[in-house]
Amino acid sequence: MSEAGKPIGELGERALLRHLRSRIPAGEGVVLGVGDDAAAVMTGPLTLLTSDVLVEHTHFKLEWAPPRLLGRKALSINISDVAAMGGIARQALVCLCLRPEITLDFVDALYDGLLERAAETGVSIVGGNLASTNGPIVVDITVLGHGDHLLTRTGASPGDRIVVTGQLGAAATGLRLLSEGARLDSDGTLVATGLWTESSRQPIEHCLRAQLDPAPPWALARLLAERQLVHAAMDLSDGLSGDLLTLCEASEVAAAIDLAALPVDPHAASLTRARGGDALGLALHGGEDYQLLLAVAPDALAEVSEAAAMWEIPLADVGEIMAGAPALAQRGSDGLRPLNPRSHDHFAPSLGMGMTPQP
Amino acid sequence: MSEAGKPIGELGERALLRHLRSRIPAGEGVVLGVGDDAAAVMTGPLTLLTSDVLVEHTHFKLEWAPPRLLGRKALSINISDVAAMGGIARQALVCLCLRPEITLDFVDALYDGLLERAAETGVSIVGGNLASTNGPIVVDITVLGHGDHLLTRTGASPGDRIVVTGQLGAAATGLRLLSEGARLDSDGTLVATGLWTESSRQPIEHCLRAQLDPAPPWALARLLAERQLVHAAMDLSDGLSGDLLTLCEASEVAAAIDLAALPVDPHAASLTRARGGDALGLALHGGEDYQLLLAVAPDALAEVSEAAAMWEIPLADVGEIMAGAPALAQRGSDGLRPLNPRSHDHFAPSLGMGMTPQP
Repeated sequence: MSEAGKPIGELGERALLRHLRSRIPAGEGVVLGVGDDAAAVMTGPLTLLTSDVLVEHTHFKLEWAPPRLLGRKALSINISDVAAMGGIARQALVCLCLRPEITLDFVDALYDGLLERAAETGVSIVGGNLASTNGPIVVDITVLGHGDHLLTRTGASPGDRIVVTGQLGAAATGLRLLSEGARLDSDGTLVATGLWTESSRQPIEHCLRAQLDPAPPWALARLLAERQLVHAAMDLSDGLSGDLLTLCEASEVAAAIDLAALPVDPHAASLTRARGGDALGLALHGGEDYQLLLAVAPDALAEVSEAAAMWEIPLADVGEIMAGAPALAQRGSDGLRPLNPRSHDHFAPSLGMGMTPQP
Repeated sequence: MSEAGKPIGELGERALLRHLRSRIPAGEGVVLGVGDDAAAVMTGPLTLLTSDVLVEHTHFKLEWAPPRLLGRKALSINISDVAAMGGIARQALVCLCLRPEITLDFVDALYDGLLERAAETGVSIVGGNLASTNGPIVVDITVLGHGDHLLTRTGASPGDRIVVTGQLGAAATGLRLLSEGARLDSDGTLVATGLWTESSRQPIEHCLRAQLDPAPPWALARLLAERQLVHAAMDLSDGLSGDLLTLCEASEVAAAIDLAALPVDPHAASLTRARGGDALGLALHGGEDYQLLLAVAPDALAEVSEAAAMWEIPLADVGEIMAGAPALAQRGSDGLRPLNPRSHDHFAPSLGMGMTPQP
């Protein structure tokens, strides 16, 4: 058996730590990286910190997610949180809970993705830990960032426009495609179309990539924070309806969404149409798009659009913040109606997989 | 069913988050705490960061650890890492992976312990996350600290004395006592002596507390760092033999331990003698004491002792750092012999529980 195929239980914790440590480059501002009781980094005066976890069976399946992409996503979703606060991600701690029979090449591929994504985003991996489990794999990452002008969830005011970046629904569509047998390889190339024919390759690949390798618009978030162009911001992880309600609760306002204005991802829309469905629900409730949800004063909209254009990021004005107790409404062809968020509850036992439910 | 006995799967993620958020007090230096995409805290210029995880079945069992004590320990072991770098712990992120059938009163008791320990140590809980799992409970905590004079593992020099704080072997004895049915209640009071008679209450309670509610000597570590009294330091988590080898590897030196000088915990010793065993192995290889392992120049020993006396912490001079490739030797009545560390390897499948092995 090659070293790479060796179970980490045979390799041993000390050797695995030594191996991973040798792969992690030194980073700027890192006084002391992996290998001591704690890392020491230059920060300040204001430090952002966040942690987000991927749990096997709850957030991913080994058959669905090539480990390199899992590593990329685990870091990306944390960078998304720092970006949604207007910060620049700087350092990461990586905590892995692994079964002893997991092979070294799995851990190495996971680290390939982590290190690549870290290099792309200027993040230094400075520590973390390895623990053994007899259950689901856990990838828990903490990211520290530098912030100065914060983009919080609390500043939305009645009259603000609700703006989202990018297009919505592709990640949720990707999840459904995975359950139907579609697969990417570790390079992000489509290797199986599952229940679908070859003619749908392009939209399938697009949606799988959205699900397995999200690319949050962090540079735009940074620009919006620096120029103080928005009243409130958060990232879209649980789905627009649930996240908008969260933003309303934080800001103590209500919100109305114009259904016709939702930026439905065109690939998600074409695949959903082919099933005889409507992708509007995906754009409204589907999670994991990791785009930005913004509350913008009407007179700042033009400048926000200009900033997004610099990064070639689409923007959509999807509704309005209103005075009132936290609640959502939808504006359709039949007027204004209450809207119940249908976003993901990790603890709801009815969800089975516990993953983002399909609309 | 009372609210407290309700499974969190019925309560729902949003309600659970809201509930926990309402329990977490605002902290000094915390610009933005729990409830946004990321927390924002005042730091700098040098920030220490560490994360350590407790995994059910690997590091604890629900039958053995009252949740309040589990919360205290999860935070304490991270504070221990920051202290062993000479820092002051300031902020914590708490990541919990929980099964949906876990009750609210379990989560609340865990938070009782976390919040108590945080208040005792001046740590603010500023964020984290909740995730659902169908497997072992995971309590993963990240702690940020403030540092200026770092205590690293890399500075040990030939001729330095090897010094440990406190007494060793009680935590490993406590683990064995748990496996024999001895139990503490959530207040840390002995409620079952297991295989032992009532006459052993005092040593049993002492060893169980050492295992379930460790108290790292962080104030002393801070003082040693400020006065720059030691060449190298780390905390004793995996056991003296394994941790000393780690320190030797980091400092590129060898070490010899004087077996007769080991500060064997007297309660652990009395219980081990009652079994017909020798507690020396517990002090040498048993893990989780969370005391400090120090390399001290001989001419600084007196001042280190004085500092420890201020905090009423025992110190023991247990051996010498020597030139040479990283390796350990033991000095006994029969002279100097090689010493193989027998500390814990989380990934070794032979360990069964995966917990610290009993000597």
